Amino acid sequence: MNAEIIAVGSELLLGQIANTNAQFISEHLATLGIDVFFHTVCGDNEARMIDVIKKAETRADLLIFTGGLGPTKDDLTKETVAQVLGRKLVTDQEAMDSILEYFKVTGREMTENNKKQALVIEGSQVLPNHHGMAPGMIVDAENHLYLLMPGVPSEMKPMFLDFASGYLASRNNEHIQSRVLRFFGIGESQLETKIIDLIDAQSNPTIAPLAKESEVTLRLTAKHERVEQANAMLDKIEAEIDSRVGQFLYGYNEDSLPEIVFKLLVDQKKTIAFAESLTGGMAADWMAGIPGASSVLKGGVVSYTNQVKADLLHVPSEVLASDGAVSDRCAKHMAESVRKLCHSDIGLSFTGVAGPDKSEGKAVGTVYIGFSDAHETQSYRFQFNGARQKIRTQSAKTGYDLVRRHLRTLPLLNQ
Amino acid sequence: MNAEIIAVGSELLLGQIANTNAQFISEHLATLGIDVFFHTVCGDNEARMIDVIKKAETRADLLIFTGGLGPTKDDLTKETVAQVLGRKLVTDQEAMDSILEYFKVTGREMTENNKKQALVIEGSQVLPNHHGMAPGMIVDAENHLYLLMPGVPSEMKPMFLDFASGYLASRNNEHIQSRVLRFFGIGESQLETKIIDLIDAQSNPTIAPLAKESEVTLRLTAKHERVEQANAMLDKIEAEIDSRVGQFLYGYNEDSLPEIVFKLLVDQKKTIAFAESLTGGMAADWMAGIPGASSVLKGGVVSYTNQVKADLLHVPSEVLASDGAVSDRCAKHMAESVRKLCHSDIGLSFTGVAGPDKSEGKAVGTVYIGFSDAHETQSYRFQFNGARQKIRTQSAKTGYDLVRRHLRTLPLLNQ
Repeated sequence: MNAEIIAVGSELLLGQIANTNAQFISEHLATLGIDVFFHTVCGDNEARMIDVIKKAETRADLLIFTGGLGPTKDDLTKETVAQVLGRKLVTDQEAMDSILEYFKVTGREMTENNKKQALVIEGSQVLPNHHGMAPGMIVDAENHLYLLMPGVPSEMKPMFLDFASGYLASRNNEHIQSRVLRFFGIGESQLETKIIDLIDAQSNPTIAPLAKESEVTLRLTAKHERVEQANAMLDKIEAEIDSRVGQFLYGYNEDSLPEIVFKLLVDQKKTIAFAESLTGGMAADWMAGIPGASSVLKGGVVSYTNQVKADLLHVPSEVLASDGAVSDRCAKHMAESVRKLCHSDIGLSFTGVAGPDKSEGKAVGTVYIGFSDAHETQSYRFQFNGARQKIRTQSAKTGYDLVRRHLRTLPLLNQ
Repeated sequence: MNAEIIAVGSELLLGQIANTNAQFISEHLATLGIDVFFHTVCGDNEARMIDVIKKAETRADLLIFTGGLGPTKDDLTKETVAQVLGRKLVTDQEAMDSILEYFKVTGREMTENNKKQALVIEGSQVLPNHHGMAPGMIVDAENHLYLLMPGVPSEMKPMFLDFASGYLASRNNEHIQSRVLRFFGIGESQLETKIIDLIDAQSNPTIAPLAKESEVTLRLTAKHERVEQANAMLDKIEAEIDSRVGQFLYGYNEDSLPEIVFKLLVDQKKTIAFAESLTGGMAADWMAGIPGASSVLKGGVVSYTNQVKADLLHVPSEVLASDGAVSDRCAKHMAESVRKLCHSDIGLSFTGVAGPDKSEGKAVGTVYIGFSDAHETQSYRFQFNGARQKIRTQSAKTGYDLVRRHLRTLPLLNQ
């Protein structure tokens, strides 16, 4: 089975939002062994939508629509699909009840236009929406499957996972196993060069490299009649890659560096605290975003000014005066102080020049990351490049990678 | 002139990344008065890419490609466009020099495959890449314009803004003016209901509502031969909208709540500090991400544990024992303490239950936000719903909106 994902909404063509739905759905279809050859975005325009549907029918078995199921006048998806299929729209009582319930629970004012959301294509299987009002639907027509879901990601994602995904899996028989290896601290072309013989020889499994923001991933994909065999093929190629660049391989699939560090901390029963100047709370926020964070995250100090560095983190004024806030000694004091203040096992600190302007005569991108535990307090100097947010993000990721390497007793990198 | 944006890359179809490039380019094309009717994503596959190019030529004047200009074997975009146009690829010496320079500056190891990136389509105008290696190019063929840019956003964006945008503006004569109004604290259907008569009567300017993460926007778009007249039309409709829902209107276009609060603080020469439990550094990070943040952001404390709340923020143990950390009194103590500790004019605090589990017998989504300045210390209780990150993000945004309302002496909302 192969699919085309069609996002409907002028807001996408106007650039008000990105088509993150297509990403989410594509990633899950890949795990179901359903190929995606095209994404299409078209506006809230009936004629163009009909043209897109007819083109998609020539090249895909499964047409997945997101968006255009809402209450407003420019929401046209189900109306247009119904028209192409020659079917009527009918009111779904369960959907209507759920809409009424939604307004009751949230205490918001129900406006008349919301009732339009309970209309569904005749003969479709209705997918409940537990996070909003517009239900989804699946139409199994003669030669094609049509899946319609809302455009708001927080409604579409659970609907896809809870209802659509199982249905699609039951309709597809191929076994494709996919695994993403995530690397930090190595560039895309450097990585490719180290495994170019494997890439050249690839056919099954396939190896697809991709550069992300200061990271690189390799997606390995194997096809086989038996799931176990496909997984064994992935294990074998991964072992070969690991033997060459294993120290840079930090995780798999949806893993993030903070999640990996979180798991290492939980496993080793250790806690962490952050002292952040440059990153201004970003590193602590990443950890706090992980469910269960309170078992490892003690807290932190955002020391954006020298006054806060001195008052809260007890960085000696002599250090700030002679070496400056962006310095080896300041980073060490920050990491050690925050560890002691928050009673954590590890203290991690960030101080640097995010730009756009130089600071203390130091170049934009100059960053010191401090690490402190009961045994040692160290700082590491980096020179990053790029714009403000790129430097801040790369700093936070590099800090997490430092902690990862400490906890796994891997060699420490310095740039 | 109308455009189709074609993103090339199997990584998009596999869902490894979202097509944020299409969003960025669309948003800027809208301001240039260039209509975008379709986005298409296709894989690194020559036959399918040729099919997509030929279809796009039937419905667009301008074909914009992102991705597929890199060093690896599956980068095929310029090769395929050249083939469709019947042109050759030639080495661009400037691009080659720039690639050699890039490796010199970053000190990274240059691998042989990088040289492929200096090849360009014969007769094209080459667009320099100051943030990576692959140059872009513009081909002005008989009936169509072709713009090719790299897929990495940090390379594509500056290339588009610095080189492509001006070229496209000079080729287009229509005057379309667009303005996005950004609202916080009001739902999409509630907003639509309050201005439904304006939406029903719309033709020029048009009014397009869109729900984002806990925000709503209205995009106003006016067309006229004269720019000034188009802007006057926007001013008029905005004034009418403002008279009805003005207190929820916090900004325009790319504005974010943190940026608006940043500007208000700068204007009023005030500073801020954050005490964050629930949000764990997110609120401080948002401010720290803004260039010039150091003029208003003093710092903050991430008080993820009660120990840190007591030790660093001096929340009385009696309060933590009787009311708990998620309480009115705790929020007030946090806000006032962080203001005093960091010597800021305003202290803002967040404490709440992000989930997935209840805490202190309080429901997931229970949030207290504390505000403290020289005149008063208050806390506001909210009940949010959704998953962990939604609750945390909504809390941080609501905190910023509270500060905005304080600074603009607007009525304070409570849910």
